[in-house]
Amino acid sequence: MFVEPVKSVGLAHLSYVVGHGGQAVVIDPRRDCEIYLEIAEKYGVAITRIFETHRNEDYVIGSRELARLTGASIHHSGATKFAYGETVEEGDTFRVGGLELMVLETPGHTFDSISLVLRDTTSGSAPLAVFTGDALFIGDVGRTDFFPDRKEEVAGLLYDSIFNKILTLGDQTILYPAHGAGSVCGKGMAPRDFSTLGYERMHNKALTVGSREAFIARKVAERHPLPPYFKQMEAYNQEGTPPAVLPLPRPTPFTPEAFEARMARGLQVVDLRSPEAFAGAFIPGSFAFPLEMLSAYAGFFLEYGTPIGLVAETHDQIDMAVRRLVRIGYEKVVCFLEGGLAAWEQSGRAYDTIPAIHADELVRRIEEDDDFVLVDVRDDDEWDAGHLPGAVHAFLGDLPGNLDVDKSRRITTFCGSGARAIIAASILKQNGWTTVEDSLGSMMACQKRGCPIERD
Amino acid sequence: MFVEPVKSVGLAHLSYVVGHGGQAVVIDPRRDCEIYLEIAEKYGVAITRIFETHRNEDYVIGSRELARLTGASIHHSGATKFAYGETVEEGDTFRVGGLELMVLETPGHTFDSISLVLRDTTSGSAPLAVFTGDALFIGDVGRTDFFPDRKEEVAGLLYDSIFNKILTLGDQTILYPAHGAGSVCGKGMAPRDFSTLGYERMHNKALTVGSREAFIARKVAERHPLPPYFKQMEAYNQEGTPPAVLPLPRPTPFTPEAFEARMARGLQVVDLRSPEAFAGAFIPGSFAFPLEMLSAYAGFFLEYGTPIGLVAETHDQIDMAVRRLVRIGYEKVVCFLEGGLAAWEQSGRAYDTIPAIHADELVRRIEEDDDFVLVDVRDDDEWDAGHLPGAVHAFLGDLPGNLDVDKSRRITTFCGSGARAIIAASILKQNGWTTVEDSLGSMMACQKRGCPIERD
Amino acid sequence: MFVEPVKSVGLAHLSYVVGHGGQAVVIDPRRDCEIYLEIAEKYGVAITRIFETHRNEDYVIGSRELARLTGASIHHSGATKFAYGETVEEGDTFRVGGLELMVLETPGHTFDSISLVLRDTTSGSAPLAVFTGDALFIGDVGRTDFFPDRKEEVAGLLYDSIFNKILTLGDQTILYPAHGAGSVCGKGMAPRDFSTLGYERMHNKALTVGSREAFIARKVAERHPLPPYFKQMEAYNQEGTPPAVLPLPRPTPFTPEAFEARMARGLQVVDLRSPEAFAGAFIPGSFAFPLEMLSAYAGFFLEYGTPIGLVAETHDQIDMAVRRLVRIGYEKVVCFLEGGLAAWEQSGRAYDTIPAIHADELVRRIEEDDDFVLVDVRDDDEWDAGHLPGAVHAFLGDLPGNLDVDKSRRITTFCGSGARAIIAASILKQNGWTTVEDSLGSMMACQKRGCPIERD
Amino acid sequence: MFVEPVKSVGLAHLSYVVGHGGQAVVIDPRRDCEIYLEIAEKYGVAITRIFETHRNEDYVIGSRELARLTGASIHHSGATKFAYGETVEEGDTFRVGGLELMVLETPGHTFDSISLVLRDTTSGSAPLAVFTGDALFIGDVGRTDFFPDRKEEVAGLLYDSIFNKILTLGDQTILYPAHGAGSVCGKGMAPRDFSTLGYERMHNKALTVGSREAFIARKVAERHPLPPYFKQMEAYNQEGTPPAVLPLPRPTPFTPEAFEARMARGLQVVDLRSPEAFAGAFIPGSFAFPLEMLSAYAGFFLEYGTPIGLVAETHDQIDMAVRRLVRIGYEKVVCFLEGGLAAWEQSGRAYDTIPAIHADELVRRIEEDDDFVLVDVRDDDEWDAGHLPGAVHAFLGDLPGNLDVDKSRRITTFCGSGARAIIAASILKQNGWTTVEDSLGSMMACQKRGCPIERD
Repeated sequence: MFVEPVKSVGLAHLSYVVGHGGQAVVIDPRRDCEIYLEIAEKYGVAITRIFETHRNEDYVIGSRELARLTGASIHHSGATKFAYGETVEEGDTFRVGGLELMVLETPGHTFDSISLVLRDTTSGSAPLAVFTGDALFIGDVGRTDFFPDRKEEVAGLLYDSIFNKILTLGDQTILYPAHGAGSVCGKGMAPRDFSTLGYERMHNKALTVGSREAFIARKVAERHPLPPYFKQMEAYNQEGTPPAVLPLPRPTPFTPEAFEARMARGLQVVDLRSPEAFAGAFIPGSFAFPLEMLSAYAGFFLEYGTPIGLVAETHDQIDMAVRRLVRIGYEKVVCFLEGGLAAWEQSGRAYDTIPAIHADELVRRIEEDDDFVLVDVRDDDEWDAGHLPGAVHAFLGDLPGNLDVDKSRRITTFCGSGARAIIAASILKQNGWTTVEDSLGSMMACQKRGCPIERD
Repeated sequence: MFVEPVKSVGLAHLSYVVGHGGQAVVIDPRRDCEIYLEIAEKYGVAITRIFETHRNEDYVIGSRELARLTGASIHHSGATKFAYGETVEEGDTFRVGGLELMVLETPGHTFDSISLVLRDTTSGSAPLAVFTGDALFIGDVGRTDFFPDRKEEVAGLLYDSIFNKILTLGDQTILYPAHGAGSVCGKGMAPRDFSTLGYERMHNKALTVGSREAFIARKVAERHPLPPYFKQMEAYNQEGTPPAVLPLPRPTPFTPEAFEARMARGLQVVDLRSPEAFAGAFIPGSFAFPLEMLSAYAGFFLEYGTPIGLVAETHDQIDMAVRRLVRIGYEKVVCFLEGGLAAWEQSGRAYDTIPAIHADELVRRIEEDDDFVLVDVRDDDEWDAGHLPGAVHAFLGDLPGNLDVDKSRRITTFCGSGARAIIAASILKQNGWTTVEDSLGSMMACQKRGCPIERD
Repeated sequence: MFVEPVKSVGLAHLSYVVGHGGQAVVIDPRRDCEIYLEIAEKYGVAITRIFETHRNEDYVIGSRELARLTGASIHHSGATKFAYGETVEEGDTFRVGGLELMVLETPGHTFDSISLVLRDTTSGSAPLAVFTGDALFIGDVGRTDFFPDRKEEVAGLLYDSIFNKILTLGDQTILYPAHGAGSVCGKGMAPRDFSTLGYERMHNKALTVGSREAFIARKVAERHPLPPYFKQMEAYNQEGTPPAVLPLPRPTPFTPEAFEARMARGLQVVDLRSPEAFAGAFIPGSFAFPLEMLSAYAGFFLEYGTPIGLVAETHDQIDMAVRRLVRIGYEKVVCFLEGGLAAWEQSGRAYDTIPAIHADELVRRIEEDDDFVLVDVRDDDEWDAGHLPGAVHAFLGDLPGNLDVDKSRRITTFCGSGARAIIAASILKQNGWTTVEDSLGSMMACQKRGCPIERD
Repeated sequence: MFVEPVKSVGLAHLSYVVGHGGQAVVIDPRRDCEIYLEIAEKYGVAITRIFETHRNEDYVIGSRELARLTGASIHHSGATKFAYGETVEEGDTFRVGGLELMVLETPGHTFDSISLVLRDTTSGSAPLAVFTGDALFIGDVGRTDFFPDRKEEVAGLLYDSIFNKILTLGDQTILYPAHGAGSVCGKGMAPRDFSTLGYERMHNKALTVGSREAFIARKVAERHPLPPYFKQMEAYNQEGTPPAVLPLPRPTPFTPEAFEARMARGLQVVDLRSPEAFAGAFIPGSFAFPLEMLSAYAGFFLEYGTPIGLVAETHDQIDMAVRRLVRIGYEKVVCFLEGGLAAWEQSGRAYDTIPAIHADELVRRIEEDDDFVLVDVRDDDEWDAGHLPGAVHAFLGDLPGNLDVDKSRRITTFCGSGARAIIAASILKQNGWTTVEDSLGSMMACQKRGCPIERD
C-alpha cells in the first residue's frame, strides 16, 4: 500500500498516486503525465481510476491525457457540468486492493470540490489519510474569492466542509492537500509537505480564529491575484479539450539570425536565466521569466496564440520550461536560442542591460532625494505590510497598465527578493521606459540593512 | 522543512534525513551513505548531526562513514558504552533551522533505545512527528527477546516507553519507525510506510491487547530468528570499527576458468538469480540467494573471513548485492562470473539442476505415499499455523544441522512461496543430499489448490 | 562536427546522427526515435534531413515518426517506388554546416541501395567517412539473396558498387555500416564497430577472394534465413504506413488470474527470462524468447494480429522488449504478468519445466544408445560445419513443421550455446511434444568437452 | 572488441578504454576515474593494464587511483624516471583478448612520449588504430616548447616520430589522440573526434608544410601559454603522489554569513556562473571562472594551499567544477554559497557589477576619443592577427602584473568572445582597478559589426 506524492514545482501542485494489490488511482494528475506511469510501473500496479478534486483553475488537468494512455476512468463532482468523465457523490466508495477511497463533498473553494478519505481495510476502520484538494492545506485553507457576489456564502461553505466533515475524520488522519507553499491558490501555506488533521486543528492559522464568523470574516478580507490565464484553464478543464501533449514538444535550436527573423514574424521571447544574468545582458523585447518564476507569472503576460521562443543557459532549463508552460496551456514552444545569449552577443546583435541597485544605494538616493522612481511591484498585502518611503506601488501582474510614471524617468523596480523586480524591469523595457534598473535583494536586503520602512 | 525517508530494501530498514534552514540531521544512516549526501545536496543543507536510535544489531550503522564525509557529530544513548560519539539524555533538545528534535528515552527493544520528537517551531508547539527506532513500528512493536533472562522486564519497559511516553505525544503525531514490513526486527508490520500515533493507538495489534500484562505476555511468547551475523553487527556498532567502504567495492569479472580456480582456493559463491533460474541450472557448491532474500538469509550462512563471488544476470543485481552485503558487514566481494551462468554452461563445466514440484504433485505423492521427504523450512510460527501432512520441519536458518534425514532420500524443500525453498535446496545440495527438489509456490500454492493442511 | 552512432541491440542495427553548425541529418533512424532528438539536443543541432540507405526489410524504419517530430525531409533512392519522401541520385550533395554528404548509388543488396560520402569541407577535400548501409559491413558485405532469379546479377552489382565506387574513396575513409555483428543481414561481420576502407580492403573476407567471379560465386553460395516478418517490414517501409508509436505502449500489469483469462481470449505469451529460468518453470503455452534472442526470432513465430503478453523478471526487460517488438512492427504489447512467474506459481496455477541436459550426458546417451532424439535447430551452415552423431536437423525458424519425430518421443533440443534450444523447446511443448529437454551449453559445451562431432 | 573514448571537457582531454575477451586497458586515465570502471562493467571486462603516453603536464594522471581500485599494472616510458609503474620499450607488445597493443617510441612533445598501435589479431595483421598521446592530433601535432634550449632538436624528433613511425602504419589506421580541440596542448586541432592517418597525411596543416625543415621552422615559431600549474602536475605525475580523491570531495553549503566569515579567514571564491550573470552581480573579491573556462584558466590564478569556495547556479555546476578542479590538482574545494548569489543579495551584503559594453559603443568611444582603456587579454597570436585601434595588450594569464594602467582609469576588458574578458575584469577588480567594464561579444561581435581592426 503506497501513497506517492508528485510535486510540480512552480505551481506547487501536489498530485498523488495511491495504490495497493495491483491497482492504483491518480488524484489530480498533471498534463505531462508520464511520471504516473513510471510510479505505477515501480509499484507494479495498473492505473484504473483518476479523480479530480475540483475543476482546477490554475493548471491544465491531465486526466484525459492519462486516461488515453491507461484506459482509466475519470471521476469528479456533478456540481460542475463537465463534458467528460463520471460523477461521484458523498459517500461513494471505491476499493483499490485492500484500500478504500470514500468521497466527501467539501465545497467552498469551488462548489464542486470533493475530498477523498483513505482507509486501509487490512488494518482498521479509522481514516488513515484524506486528500483535500484545495479545501484544506498545510497551514492554510483554500481561497474563496472566485464568486465575488457570494463571498460570505462560499467562505461559510468552506468552514462547514472543514469543521463538519474533514476534521471529524479524527486527529490521526494524515493530510494530503493539492498544493504546497508557493501556490497561487493560497498564501499562508507552510513550507512543509507533511501534517495531520490533528496538527492542523491545533496550529493552522485559518482554523484557529475562534468562530465560524471569524473564519468567514478572515476569508472575505483576503486578496488574491487572479491571473488572466485562469480562464483558459477553466475552459480546458471543464470541456476536457486540451490537445494531447505527449511526447512533449521539443523546441528547435535557432541561430541568432533565425531567432531574430522569427521575432520579426511574431515571437514571445521568454528568457529563463537568473535575474543577474538577465540584468547582465538580454535581448531587447524579451521577457525575464527566471525559471522558478515562470509558472507563477507567465500566465499574466503570455498570449496563447503567439509562439514562444526560449533563451536559456542549459537544456535542463529548456526541458523544465516546456513542462511548466505546457502545464498552463502553452504548447507552442517552437524554438530556443542555440548557444544562448553568448551566441547572440558574438553575432554582434544589440543587447541591453539593467543595472542592479543595492539597498544602501536606494537609501542614499531616498535620503539625498535623487531623481528616480522606486516602483514596488509586490502585491497589496506585501505593500500594506511595509514599503520604502516614496515608493510607487504597481502590482507586477497588472504592469504596465497600472504604472503612471513618465517613460523618461529613471525607474528602479523593487519586490520581495529581486526576482519579480527583474520581470517588472523587462516588462517596462518592452513598453517604452528607457532607463530601468532593478533592486537585487529588494525588501529582504532592505530589512537586513535596516532601511526605513513605512506603512500607509 | 523536510523529512526524507531512505528505505534499504532487503533489510526493510528506514533511515531519515530531516532538515531545515540550511542544516540537516540523519537518523540511523546506512553504511553506503552517499544517498544522504545527495539528499542534502538536493535540499541545499549541510548534514551536521547523526543520531543512532540504538546500537543496531541487524546492520552496520553508517554513522562513522557519514561523519568522515561530512564532519557531523554522532549522538546516541549513554546506556551502552559506545567507543565513539556523544551521549544524549531524556529531554535533550537540538535545533535544526526552525525545527526541533527532542530526545525521549524509550528502552525495551534495547536498553539504549531513544526516540526523537520532531516539532516545527515555525508553526506550533505540538509534536508533529516522532522517530521511534525499533520501539514502535507501523502495525507492530519492536522485538524484546535480546535478553532471554529478563524477558518480562524488557517487555514491560517497552510497554511503558510506548504508552507512557510515545503515545502521550498525541494522536496527531506522524510515526517514522526504523523498519518496515519484511524486517527481521519485527513480524507484524504493515506493508505501508505512513501512519500516525492516533492510528496505531487504535489499530496496531500489539497495542490493542488490553493491558500491560497482556502486552507483556504477548511479547514473551514471541519467537524470532537470531541470525549469527548479529554478533558481528553489535561489535561493529558498539566499537565503531567497520572499515570505510566508499567508493564501494566493485567485484572483478572472472571467466568461468578463473572463477572455478578461485573456488578451488576458497570462495563463497552467491547466486543472486531467481529461484526458477537457479532451479534450471546452477554451479555445484553455490548458495542460492535470490537478490530479494539476500539481506535476510546471507547472515545465517556466509562466513566473514572468506571472499565472496557472485553469479548474476545483470550488473544491477551485482551492484545491489554488493550494497546489501556491505550493509551487513561483508566487504570481501571480490569477483563475479562474467557472462553469467550461460558462460559457465558454454565452457562445458558441470552444472546441476533442481526440479520444481507443483502443489498438485505434492498432494499426489502424499496421497499415494510416494517415497520422498517434504522438508518445510519455515519458522516455528508458520509451521504451527499449519503444514502439509507428513512434512518434516527444519528451520532454514539452522540448516543443515537440524535436518535428520538420510542423504540418499529424495527431498523436496518447501516454504511459504518457494523463495526460501530454493535456498534450502542449495544448502542441502552443498551438504551431501543428492536428490533435492523444491516446491515453487510452496504453501501459497497449496492453499490456493486446497491441499490438506494439518496443525500439530 | 560529430558522427554519433546509435546501435539497436538485438537487430544489431546502426543508425547515425551526423551534424555540424547547428544542423544534423539522421541516417536510417529506428522507430523509437526519441534518442535522435536527445542527441540533437546534446549537440545543439536541429535535425533537418533523414536519409534511408535502402528500403529496409528487417525493421520498421522510423523516418516518418522522426519527420513528424522534427519537420525534417526524407530522402531515398528512386529505384523503389516509395509512397513518401524525396528521391536522390548519384552525385547529389547536401551541406550540413561545414560538412558535406554526397550520394553514391551502390546497388547489390537491394536495387535501391545508396551510400553517403562524408567530407569535412573545413579541413580538406578527401572523403573522411562513408555510410554504406547494407552494401559493405565490417568484415563482410550485404546479403544478395532477395532476388532468387537474379542471384549472379545482383552479386555482380554489389561487387561493382564496392570495388568501383566505395573502395575508390581511399584507404583513409572511415566505414559506417548499417549493421554490426549479430544482424540477420549478414553473417561474417566482425564483433567491432570501427574500421576503415583500407582495413577492409586488406582484411574483409568477402573482399579478399581474388576476383569478381570468385566474389559472385561466394555470394551465390550463401544461405540466409528469410524470416516471414520481412514482408511486413517491406510493406511498411515502402508505403510509409506504420502508425505513430511515441509515447511507446506501456503494457498493463495483469494478475495471474487476469493473465490467464486474457490467454483464454487469445494472447501470445512471450517469456523474456533467461533459458535457465524458463527451464526452471514456465507457463504452459508460452514462447521462450530470452530478451537477447527476441529481435532475431520473434519475427518467425509471432502473428501481427494477436495481442502479446510478457513474462519478465524486471521492468527493464519489459521496456526493452517493447522497444524491440515495436521495431519489428509488433505494437500490440498489451500486458505483462505482474509479480512475474513467482506470482503465477504462488497462485497455484500449473507450470511446466524443461530439464537441462549436459554435454557429458548427451555423449553418454549417444554411446549407450539411450532412447531419445537430439534435435539440432541450428541453421544449415552450422549443421554442415559439424553436429553430434545421430542428431536430427530442423532449423529453428521452420519449427515445428519441419520436425518429423513422433510426439511421444523424448526430445532434447540443441543449438550453438543453449539459447535457441530453449526457444525450440518452448515451440515443441506448445505443439504437442510432451517430453522435451534442452541442452544448456549445447555445441559450445560439446566442443569444450571433446564430444564426437560428425559432418555429413 | 571495443575502443571507448572518454572526453574530459574543459581540458579537451581524451582517454581510452580498449578491451576484448574479458580484459581491458586504459590509456591516460583521468583522476576521477569511476567512469572507466563503469565502462568496464558495461562491457564485462576487467581493467588489467594502464598506459601513460607520457608524463602529462596539463592534468593529474589517474593511473594510481585507478590501479588502487582495480589492481591493474601501470606502464610508461623509461625516458622519465617515474617513481612508480613499469617501463616499456619500442616493440613491446601486449595481448588483450584477441587484440594487440604495440609500443612505438614517439618522442618530440616530450622525450618520454609513446604511441600504442592497435591490431585486431582475429581479423588481420594491419594496424587498425593508433593512440598517439600528444604526438599527433586531429588537424595538428603536439607542442614542442617544453625544452626552450633544444627547440629545433625536439621539433625534429617529433617530425621523425610522425613521419618515420606513425604515418608508416598506413592510411587505413584510425587516429586516437590524447587531446581534442580546446586543449592547451595544441592550437590548430580540428573540432572533430574522428580521423585516420591517411586523412591527416593529406590534410593536417602541420604535416603538409613540405619538408622536415619547414616542419621544424613552423614548430619553433609557435607560442604557447605555460600556465604555472603545469609544475604541480609534472611533480604529481612523475612522483605518483597525488592523494586519493574518490569519493570526490563534496563542498558544504554555507550560508552567506558563514561564507563571508570563511572568506575573512582565507578563501579563493570561484564564481562559476555565466559572464552575463557575473556582470549582473558578483561578490567583491571573487574570481569569475565561468564553468567552461575553469579548466583552462584556474591554473593561472588559484593557489594550491588555499581552500576554494564556489558560487554557482546549480548543483550540476558544482559537481562539474569539483571534477575539473580535482583534475588539475585542487582538492580543497570546501564550500559553496547555498542559495547562490540571490541569497547573498537578500542577506543585504554588498555586491558589485560590471557593465557590458557592446561593439558599437566601443567604436563610438574610439571614434569620439572617449576616456577609457580597452584592455585586450587575448594571447600573442590572436593580438597579432588583428586588434582594435588604441587597445592595450595584456595576456589574461599574466594579469595583473603585466598591466601598466592607472587604477583610476575606466577600463573595458576585451577578448575573443567575452568569456575571458569577464575573467580579466574580475582579476582587475580584485587588484584595485575600480571602474571596470567588459565587452560581451568582444572581437567576434566587432568583426560582425565591421569595427576597424589594426595589426601592429
